[in-house]
Amino acid sequence: MSAMSMPMGSAFDVAPWSQNHLTRVEQALSQWVGEGAPAGLGDAMRYAVLDGGKRLRPLLVLAAYEAVCSSASVATPALDDAAIRAACAVELIHAYSLVHDDMPCMDNDVLRRGKPTVHVQFGEAPALLAGDALQAFAFELLTPDDSLIPTAIQATLCRLLARAAGSAGMAGGQAIDLASVGVALAEDQLRQMHRLKTGALLQGSVLMGAVCGHAAATAYQALSDYGAAMGLAFQVVDDILDVVADSATLGKTAGKDAAADKPTYVSLLGLARAQAYAQELLVEAHSALARSGLPDTRALAALADMVVRRSY
Amino acid sequence: MSAMSMPMGSAFDVAPWSQNHLTRVEQALSQWVGEGAPAGLGDAMRYAVLDGGKRLRPLLVLAAYEAVCSSASVATPALDDAAIRAACAVELIHAYSLVHDDMPCMDNDVLRRGKPTVHVQFGEAPALLAGDALQAFAFELLTPDDSLIPTAIQATLCRLLARAAGSAGMAGGQAIDLASVGVALAEDQLRQMHRLKTGALLQGSVLMGAVCGHAAATAYQALSDYGAAMGLAFQVVDDILDVVADSATLGKTAGKDAAADKPTYVSLLGLARAQAYAQELLVEAHSALARSGLPDTRALAALADMVVRRSY
Repeated sequence: MSAMSMPMGSAFDVAPWSQNHLTRVEQALSQWVGEGAPAGLGDAMRYAVLDGGKRLRPLLVLAAYEAVCSSASVATPALDDAAIRAACAVELIHAYSLVHDDMPCMDNDVLRRGKPTVHVQFGEAPALLAGDALQAFAFELLTPDDSLIPTAIQATLCRLLARAAGSAGMAGGQAIDLASVGVALAEDQLRQMHRLKTGALLQGSVLMGAVCGHAAATAYQALSDYGAAMGLAFQVVDDILDVVADSATLGKTAGKDAAADKPTYVSLLGLARAQAYAQELLVEAHSALARSGLPDTRALAALADMVVRRSY
Repeated sequence: MSAMSMPMGSAFDVAPWSQNHLTRVEQALSQWVGEGAPAGLGDAMRYAVLDGGKRLRPLLVLAAYEAVCSSASVATPALDDAAIRAACAVELIHAYSLVHDDMPCMDNDVLRRGKPTVHVQFGEAPALLAGDALQAFAFELLTPDDSLIPTAIQATLCRLLARAAGSAGMAGGQAIDLASVGVALAEDQLRQMHRLKTGALLQGSVLMGAVCGHAAATAYQALSDYGAAMGLAFQVVDDILDVVADSATLGKTAGKDAAADKPTYVSLLGLARAQAYAQELLVEAHSALARSGLPDTRALAALADMVVRRSY
């Protein structure tokens, strides 16, 4: 995963880049998740995390890390280690949030990534505990014993992740979402909900990658803007897919937002304007990359494209 | 909360010490918890944390910090800040675990600290989210922006807390507890369950305080032994109180372990031997303090006494 593994100046093909980095992420998750946990808990944690998911957040961490390293060639084994740990940590937070979201008291969903949800497979109490343990494990991954990762980076990664996951981030957005069922939100309220609910962790992933590569202030700010636009685009597209895709393609229950009478970009703007808005946000994301001053942001650009053009 | 505020060599009265430090903890929690959270979520978080609880874990953090500072006079405003943040962070983890434990899919308890449990008061989904947000906020507290707290201390505090809370700590112990209903555990299995379920966070509290004061290796190991013995004593006494106390005194439902057919020290050893074991562990805790080499461990000694002699 060294920054040097990405040839600069050549045509960029995102497929092999993604495949290469996904392999690293899957190996790391498979090695780490559930290690040292009591058997039943470890099984539920691994079920929740492994063998499924697009791994968008880990790829954002690694793409941002490499983009920053492309500027100053600062990649070292310790920073590579920080980046892969950060990549896994954001996925653990995402996975735990899905486990808890799917529970009967929340969305009561039985299908996720094409498999029975964790509480269906293991029971509600084990699902609750597995989610809790995954959140704690994310922070454990960021702060390894006897590591060469600079402590300033470890602390900053914990700060960014905690904020992205907590009451001013993902959990806060979910709380607003819960409270908004059947309520007519204005566009700025809907945007604020999504900024927190999904945007904060997507943007946080980009920032965590940037921190692993010691990003300078200008690049950091540009990557933050990229993360905000891309994160919001993700949710707009999610709202669109909930309407236009079927459950088999999504790997989860389609049409559930409308069924639950939840406000979405489609219900607010209509389908055509929601699609146009996703395109605008994509342009914004690309333009932020252009002003980052980083010489190679092709992987980040390709990931934003994937976010908007995905079909599931 | 400076280490200097505790006169050395004079007779030690734990009541004013506790009162003084509890006031600091309550003020800090009240200032921080729920700040920046959407209204409904913030309310549930504050309800879960404020106005209740013995605050044993925060007091252990502060007592360990001051004990270490009594040796080397290293207390600084930045380290004082680290210690009060660590004190609040362990309480947030404890509070979140109670919120989730009380939920219908776990212990299904309606009374906690003499009040309706969070899910009774706010609903199940908000309780689930409030617990999740409290865990994230614990790590946020440990990694403040623009702080003078050395990053090595911030990172170590996150590591200790994550381990104490996660699958090899509290959440792991709860998973074993869940799986052990109606199962005859041997004493070493019961001890292992309790070491994780309650012991890990109690011991972690002591270690986090020690880290805030830059404890030397000998003192750190002795405090770790103190934390292990005191943490196990806490659970033995909990098992005893579940049998001998009533719900009004406990502020929670008494007799629920026996009702749930859960293995306890009382069911395993009988009441008299369980009481004797708690006393043995108290002696072990005191003896660990004696070999710490720290000049003033009176607050830690008094807290261990309180743990064993408490009636609720």
